[in-house]
Amino acid sequence: MNSTQSDRRRFLKDAALAGIAVGGITSASGQAPTSESRHADISAYGERSQFENSVRVTAAFHDPPKDHSSVTPLQDSVGIITPSGLHFWEDHDFGNPLPGGDPRQHRLLIHGLVDRPTTYLWEDLKRLPVGSGVYFIESKSNSKPLKGRDAESVQQVHGKTSCSEWTGAPLSLLLREAGLQKGAKWALAEGSDSGKYTTSIPIEKAMEDVLVAYAQNGESVRPQNGYPLRLIVPGWQGHNDVKWLRRIKVVDEPYMAKWESGSSADQWPDGKARWFRFETGPKSIITRPCPENRLSGHGYCEITGLAWSGGGKILKVEVSTDGGRSWKQARLEGPVLPMAHTRFCFDWNWDGEEAVLQSRCTDERGEIQPSLAELGRHMGVPPDQLEPYFGFPGKLKDHINAIQPWKVNWDGSVRNALFS
Amino acid sequence: MNSTQSDRRRFLKDAALAGIAVGGITSASGQAPTSESRHADISAYGERSQFENSVRVTAAFHDPPKDHSSVTPLQDSVGIITPSGLHFWEDHDFGNPLPGGDPRQHRLLIHGLVDRPTTYLWEDLKRLPVGSGVYFIESKSNSKPLKGRDAESVQQVHGKTSCSEWTGAPLSLLLREAGLQKGAKWALAEGSDSGKYTTSIPIEKAMEDVLVAYAQNGESVRPQNGYPLRLIVPGWQGHNDVKWLRRIKVVDEPYMAKWESGSSADQWPDGKARWFRFETGPKSIITRPCPENRLSGHGYCEITGLAWSGGGKILKVEVSTDGGRSWKQARLEGPVLPMAHTRFCFDWNWDGEEAVLQSRCTDERGEIQPSLAELGRHMGVPPDQLEPYFGFPGKLKDHINAIQPWKVNWDGSVRNALFS
Repeated sequence: MNSTQSDRRRFLKDAALAGIAVGGITSASGQAPTSESRHADISAYGERSQFENSVRVTAAFHDPPKDHSSVTPLQDSVGIITPSGLHFWEDHDFGNPLPGGDPRQHRLLIHGLVDRPTTYLWEDLKRLPVGSGVYFIESKSNSKPLKGRDAESVQQVHGKTSCSEWTGAPLSLLLREAGLQKGAKWALAEGSDSGKYTTSIPIEKAMEDVLVAYAQNGESVRPQNGYPLRLIVPGWQGHNDVKWLRRIKVVDEPYMAKWESGSSADQWPDGKARWFRFETGPKSIITRPCPENRLSGHGYCEITGLAWSGGGKILKVEVSTDGGRSWKQARLEGPVLPMAHTRFCFDWNWDGEEAVLQSRCTDERGEIQPSLAELGRHMGVPPDQLEPYFGFPGKLKDHINAIQPWKVNWDGSVRNALFS
Repeated sequence: MNSTQSDRRRFLKDAALAGIAVGGITSASGQAPTSESRHADISAYGERSQFENSVRVTAAFHDPPKDHSSVTPLQDSVGIITPSGLHFWEDHDFGNPLPGGDPRQHRLLIHGLVDRPTTYLWEDLKRLPVGSGVYFIESKSNSKPLKGRDAESVQQVHGKTSCSEWTGAPLSLLLREAGLQKGAKWALAEGSDSGKYTTSIPIEKAMEDVLVAYAQNGESVRPQNGYPLRLIVPGWQGHNDVKWLRRIKVVDEPYMAKWESGSSADQWPDGKARWFRFETGPKSIITRPCPENRLSGHGYCEITGLAWSGGGKILKVEVSTDGGRSWKQARLEGPVLPMAHTRFCFDWNWDGEEAVLQSRCTDERGEIQPSLAELGRHMGVPPDQLEPYFGFPGKLKDHINAIQPWKVNWDGSVRNALFS
């Protein structure tokens, strides 16, 4: 920060009072290109090859049943960045047609327990100091079903996690400019979808690293992922990342909005519900081999996958090829960034015997990814209630970060071995 | 590396001898999705909003004149990742229609001074141990013209630099598997374009960190950027990153191919040519404000841009708002990765007076981005030969990493102030 904080604060305060008058920048590239300034379409914006057909598919598993989720083809993933067009999304049946049309009509209101309620235009936000980082987003409902036909797919089971570079205005800046009042404890974030998707975020996290993101992987957020504005709450479960964001209300307590007090709550064995679960635990998934990527013959095979944690950087990933009896450390390839997907690789020579492959990660706090049985114990779920019913989890409803074993059969096919 | 090197080597040797038989993985997702497995197109692969119109444009500056270059809209850039569809490209007039059709027909031959000449299929390479990193690619002909109408655009002048996550097989692995013979000093890389674009790379660099990349930003390389295979030579000038790669011949000396000994060579004041220039020097560019992004009023303005160096990580970026009399350190926002674009940000309060904005970076080796005059001295070009002719450089032909000053006028418009 090189100019004085007070300069910026004064500017923003004046802008709020005057309702406009941002001392910012006008983009000349906001105009459609003329035919002179561009030639072939392939030059203007290059699409992928006609031979490429990796796609998202509709999730087979719906909870509640009206949800629509579109899951990322993890079996095709390379590196740590998910292509924006393949980033998973959920619309909770609200978003048809998608909100977020003309961004010039979009407004973000900051109000509630603040001294200066403020409305921002999309272009206003792009003129403010920038925050940027590579972060995963994972749905709390990821990693289901546990068993059954639809469990035979890394895309179907685990495809509700993706990773992008997100860029936007720090929420802490917007809240400081608005002036937090005494008693400001939670930030209620609301989308502009027809269902007014809403969630409550503790003010401590809101002031820490949350972004009001207008960009994903170097360009505007894609429509399914919240265009023109999406909240990004790094390391926390994806339902906090409110899409088509239009309102932040600062309040004194959580609002227990529909998706917090209803389907998003965990029911515990004693019948009580646990409403708030924030951070994503350490988790890793082998993406090759997997049910979609069978082995075609004996010999060398690189085992590779993704690891991530809401607790910071991934410290290490271990791989077992003998059903968990022994573990060896994998290589982390490419950038290892906090609260981002991290790519791991492990050299393996397949001798043609049956084998069970699994990975487990440890984050920089030392937290270790649990097995399903360990997760059950941690969550207070008795072992006999872990067994799923038609593939749906038993008493383990959400937030499943258990180790995923894949069984390699004699013929090179790969099956889900979580319950086998 | 967890399995023995010899296992992998044996596998690869056998594969080379047998001509095939890779103990690898078959992707079930290579099939086109059925209508049952996908619903709307927006779910299968999400495109950007209809309101988004940031595009590459044809470079106004051609050298040689038959070149076709398509330049990245840096004025719209955010974060450090360039969207694959907006990554700059040059086809040297070879690639129309683009090579790189059906990737299953594509072959990569490794031969020359090796014990075991080897041919790889695209799918073979994807089964090998992976190398991955976020790297910039910058054309050596970037940052022209220096003056004139086409110099009034950050996209036209500097848009031949972009940054992606690149993933592929390490070239060192392929060369080790082939077995380098005595006298192996250079790797000659050839594309499958109609002009057989070819360049020579020292074997030391080939064995260090070069990738035979099949993926860019988490999916296959885009056609204009070399689908299905592109060489990535981290930190070196972009003409080494051979697209549509089909052949690596290990040789004992550089081959002085057309583009090395011809137009890619620098002519020096004494009439001699300097053929090989490898590493990209430390460089930074302010992308907002810039000629395309004028100031619309007094007050707060974030100055932001990109910095990069072939010498490793960016250590710091300094910004001057008074024509270079004083400099203050900018904030580096987001990941700071070696040989990658690095985003810098600087708070500024515009008082409405004329101002000259410029940035200069220092890389982790301590090398500092030069002014044009300093660059000229370093390159042995007399001051009177720096002045461009119709915007084309004087004796400074390529490899221009000089500080770029932008002048802010009273009315908020921004002009190129390199010669003013």
